[in-house]
Amino acid sequence: MYQCSKDRVKDKIETFSRFGSTGNRGITRFSLSKEAIAARNEFTKRMVAIGAEIVTDDMANMYATIAGFGAGLPRIALGSHADSVRNGGNYDGILGVITAMEVLETVVSEKIPHRHPLTAVIWTNEEGSLYPPAMMSSGVICGKFDKAAVLASKGVSAEAGSSEMTFGEALAASGFAGDEKNRLNPQDYCAMLELHIEQGPVLEAEKKQIGVVDGVVGMFNYRIKTRGQADHAGTTPMSFRKDALLAAASAIKWIHAELDTFPQDIVYTTGEIKLHPNVHTVIPDDVDFSLDVRHWDPAVLAQALETIKSIPKEFDNCAVTYKEAWSRARCEFNKELVGLVEKNTRALGYSYMIMHSGPGHDAQYVSGMLPTTMIFVPSKDGRSHCEEEFTTLDEAWAGVNVALNTALDIDKK
Amino acid sequence: MYQCSKDRVKDKIETFSRFGSTGNRGITRFSLSKEAIAARNEFTKRMVAIGAEIVTDDMANMYATIAGFGAGLPRIALGSHADSVRNGGNYDGILGVITAMEVLETVVSEKIPHRHPLTAVIWTNEEGSLYPPAMMSSGVICGKFDKAAVLASKGVSAEAGSSEMTFGEALAASGFAGDEKNRLNPQDYCAMLELHIEQGPVLEAEKKQIGVVDGVVGMFNYRIKTRGQADHAGTTPMSFRKDALLAAASAIKWIHAELDTFPQDIVYTTGEIKLHPNVHTVIPDDVDFSLDVRHWDPAVLAQALETIKSIPKEFDNCAVTYKEAWSRARCEFNKELVGLVEKNTRALGYSYMIMHSGPGHDAQYVSGMLPTTMIFVPSKDGRSHCEEEFTTLDEAWAGVNVALNTALDIDKK
Repeated sequence: MYQCSKDRVKDKIETFSRFGSTGNRGITRFSLSKEAIAARNEFTKRMVAIGAEIVTDDMANMYATIAGFGAGLPRIALGSHADSVRNGGNYDGILGVITAMEVLETVVSEKIPHRHPLTAVIWTNEEGSLYPPAMMSSGVICGKFDKAAVLASKGVSAEAGSSEMTFGEALAASGFAGDEKNRLNPQDYCAMLELHIEQGPVLEAEKKQIGVVDGVVGMFNYRIKTRGQADHAGTTPMSFRKDALLAAASAIKWIHAELDTFPQDIVYTTGEIKLHPNVHTVIPDDVDFSLDVRHWDPAVLAQALETIKSIPKEFDNCAVTYKEAWSRARCEFNKELVGLVEKNTRALGYSYMIMHSGPGHDAQYVSGMLPTTMIFVPSKDGRSHCEEEFTTLDEAWAGVNVALNTALDIDKK
Repeated sequence: MYQCSKDRVKDKIETFSRFGSTGNRGITRFSLSKEAIAARNEFTKRMVAIGAEIVTDDMANMYATIAGFGAGLPRIALGSHADSVRNGGNYDGILGVITAMEVLETVVSEKIPHRHPLTAVIWTNEEGSLYPPAMMSSGVICGKFDKAAVLASKGVSAEAGSSEMTFGEALAASGFAGDEKNRLNPQDYCAMLELHIEQGPVLEAEKKQIGVVDGVVGMFNYRIKTRGQADHAGTTPMSFRKDALLAAASAIKWIHAELDTFPQDIVYTTGEIKLHPNVHTVIPDDVDFSLDVRHWDPAVLAQALETIKSIPKEFDNCAVTYKEAWSRARCEFNKELVGLVEKNTRALGYSYMIMHSGPGHDAQYVSGMLPTTMIFVPSKDGRSHCEEEFTTLDEAWAGVNVALNTALDIDKK
């Protein structure tokens, strides 16, 4: 079994933590911001140093490739994203880029023979922090999003106080927009591996070093509304009221009581609520809240949806309505690659579990185009998208070793 | 019994509805805005036309006085406010000012003999729409608010797009700031009568023309917080969660279940909720909501407060805490004046009920200084603070007649 350099992994984590540092352990590194460009320049510098050839595609996705000894063979890609949310951590996304870089550096420095070219990838704007949607650029090149539409996506520029611009304008200004012909595609690539932090508490709780990820769960996202009547808090007897917030509280409690009877691994969340008029002396007339439901099994998800659609039409004298915001089917990763990740994890002696990803990742879109899978490493206390986000160096190093050996196994196919 | 002119009441309602008209049945007439100044100028024109003498005090409260035949007797005041909330109606406040004007006009045009001077009052900034607090200027002259503090109250100017200014700056710019010696006071005044729309559905539901108001209910206003943990909606198993919104829903349902066992006429409202981070893919970690509880009986209110303080310290793994935002004791109006309102309502042959006011009114602060009471007229569908706010001309006219005869009764004392 091959091993990468733990010191180099440590150096990379520390170095990339500086680009967009909040000064409080975390980073704010919006896609295409000057902090993100500094991270991209560091990536270029390190990849050029090992003799990689670097190109970008029209969505500014970056590809650093070292040649293999086979002639005309497709590339094996490894990568993730280098952008973050506001006040995010030093591991989400960037640890997958560091893994890709470290795999290539190990192969070069150890002179490990490989037939296929190996490519380290940075996916542009995975977070969608300034310019929605998330997973924007893998989505465009995999045909999930219309390019013209995402170029028109308007956000606030990363630079404080500056005016709005579109993603297309930010892309043009970045200097990283390259040629469409450089896009990852099924002719020139044979596989994609993405290492990512779990962003949840399961590996830590189960005391496992590696998550062998077999896919991304399916989900549906609904908006549920309660419609009452705005009246004065001081003049309206209780029996006359149509209190849309009380109705929303009843609806949320009802949803929990119903979905709590489902298999234990279903997750559902109301994270957002809008209240009108949201004044303490006025009974709310309109409440609108989100409901995000995720599960691996399409049958369970369908049953959950039927349950939601059976919500009473009225709570507390207020009409209850629902509509779909968006949904996505589950994504199953390539079984052969999942098997290779498991085989190499075992061979390296790491504890592991097979699991699904709850969040979406670039790998999910890529998997529609070529064989793809993911490797998870633990997140301390399950925290992510915050400055407390943390994965130990040993855990990160173990993950990179799994990626390295899996890539070299794919190379042997 | 005396009667005022229904035609003149109609004309006044229609005329004042133009100052700040939204073009959609309602008005936006923030205190000291150019629309409010137009209404004040109309008040001046009409009061000067009947020979009233007009002064303003240092808070821009306006007083239009017609002399009585008695020498050195204190004045009887009638009045309310002329400002509105955004997209408010044509009755809240202004109907009390119209009543005061119409009482004086009737007394003058019918040459009704009266010993005491009669004064029509406009209270400045009752709504506090731009510059909090509500009931600002009656509050200052009655010693409830510190004048320097309210002058520093910062709001957005009434003129769209203009920058912030303080109430003190708006007051100076209005040209209506007068002399502190003109303030209503217990030496120069012997009573105050305020007619107001009910702003609730009770008179309509009970089919009563007049509400004889015996006081303003006591209330307490609390903020209740639930504290959980922000985690990813897709990665955090249900059993690991500390969902502050679910906890808030549980707390709201608990409060309703407890307070629903209280006397039927208690009212309690959660009108405002703040959620953090309020993102549909993140489990909320902090929720903060308002609780406004009102009742006439201090013992009931104290018992309700004890109940709120007994809220479980935890719901759904989230800590629950509370703190007082503000409270006010009930205000009992002058029993003799309440009796005179009832006597005249009966004598005029109007149906009526004795009731408490849920909302606060200028009369409540004035009642701490001199004998004061209020008269309510019905609100269609209980609506107020909206363009649909409506009271029929007959209902308004009946209210003015009660005010007229009550003022003349007070004059006989």
